[in-house]
Amino acid sequence: MTDLIYEQPLNEKIRSYLRIENLALQLKLHAEQDSQHQCFAPLFSLAELTERCDYRTDILKDIDKQIQLISHWRTNSNVDDAQVDQLTERLIALKSPLQAQERIGCSLKQDKFICSLRQRFNMTGAYCNFDFPQLHFWLDKDWQYRQQDIENWRMQFQPLLAPIMLLLELIRTTADFSLCQAPVGFYQGSSPQPLSLIRVKINPNQNCYPTISGNRNRYAIHFVDFDLHRHTSETVEFSLATCT
Amino acid sequence: MTDLIYEQPLNEKIRSYLRIENLALQLKLHAEQDSQHQCFAPLFSLAELTERCDYRTDILKDIDKQIQLISHWRTNSNVDDAQVDQLTERLIALKSPLQAQERIGCSLKQDKFICSLRQRFNMTGAYCNFDFPQLHFWLDKDWQYRQQDIENWRMQFQPLLAPIMLLLELIRTTADFSLCQAPVGFYQGSSPQPLSLIRVKINPNQNCYPTISGNRNRYAIHFVDFDLHRHTSETVEFSLATCT
Repeated sequence: MTDLIYEQPLNEKIRSYLRIENLALQLKLHAEQDSQHQCFAPLFSLAELTERCDYRTDILKDIDKQIQLISHWRTNSNVDDAQVDQLTERLIALKSPLQAQERIGCSLKQDKFICSLRQRFNMTGAYCNFDFPQLHFWLDKDWQYRQQDIENWRMQFQPLLAPIMLLLELIRTTADFSLCQAPVGFYQGSSPQPLSLIRVKINPNQNCYPTISGNRNRYAIHFVDFDLHRHTSETVEFSLATCT
Repeated sequence: MTDLIYEQPLNEKIRSYLRIENLALQLKLHAEQDSQHQCFAPLFSLAELTERCDYRTDILKDIDKQIQLISHWRTNSNVDDAQVDQLTERLIALKSPLQAQERIGCSLKQDKFICSLRQRFNMTGAYCNFDFPQLHFWLDKDWQYRQQDIENWRMQFQPLLAPIMLLLELIRTTADFSLCQAPVGFYQGSSPQPLSLIRVKINPNQNCYPTISGNRNRYAIHFVDFDLHRHTSETVEFSLATCT
């Protein structure tokens, strides 16, 4: 069995980044493979999250912070300067699409097809052809046609999705996994440096999953037995990475 | 291009039956093919609909009504008595699972895994592994294991689903399609007999879909141009079946 990785954000910003990353990955899958109306749930969730909060300022700040951090790598003789340059350029390139005047995803609001679906999409058991005859019509179109539509809708969020994916990738590289033990299924730790993300890697054959809580300086991990639905009393072996 | 069929219920009961049928078909697909967490949306919608309203009395009445209607077929010399017997037996067999004391789907409420997911499932962008570590654990299990789980959850609703599917099948057979024309995209009709379901069959190459409204005695069909998002001014050819 391959190990499973569980992640816990330790602040609201990383929580949003992870949520958006997860929706972006789902939407990407639906753009690659015909899964009928399933593409709309992550699309509308993305639209809702980005309407609720404008993430651009946060992301621009984080990009600048990463560019600065990376520039310090040059003082390390083991670091390949070409790679540092390439990564810096990638980060810089992600800035200008975020600086556009128009809010991200707002042109989706002008799409009449999307708007008509979105209004009633959260209604329980909607998707009947009497709820959305236009959806029934659209679903009958060739996959190639629909795929192009999904890709166009997805691309509207790309100025947010691309930097968030890269920022999370960089945050994940700030810590390596190290082996740990949780006696009676409990583990806690602290860090003088502010943490942003806890990652727990565990072999599923131990039949438990972690529930993680914490803030920037302290965290606790409880392991729950999947079949018993309660805290395990076993000693659990896992790997831990605490990312800054 | 194959014709598309659009259906419009003309009363609340048929509306619910169609909604439940649609959810049942979705859930069946997810039980046949691994589509990760997608099975939960129709499952929870089914649970919600059946909690909001107990459909058993309606269904039992409808089964009895159908049994009576079918018995009249015997007076018609063209009807195969063996087929009538078989259909009557099928309908009778569907009654006893509906007469059980326990409300349908209620044992799903005792399932701790299901309950823990259901609580927060409507949250925008949920499904991150920090929202539901237990889901992340479950999704890693073999498809065979998960398929068995989905099948077990689905089976809880089977006493409702099976008769609803058969009743709708019988309602649909009460009318054949006949060719119609809608000048400037509009058609209306009436019926002295109370109607329960309007069915419109149309070739998608006319690039429009119907929006249907009505009650038990009158109905109106407006055809909407998919690209223009407004009422078409063309004459639309379609087939119509008005089921009782």
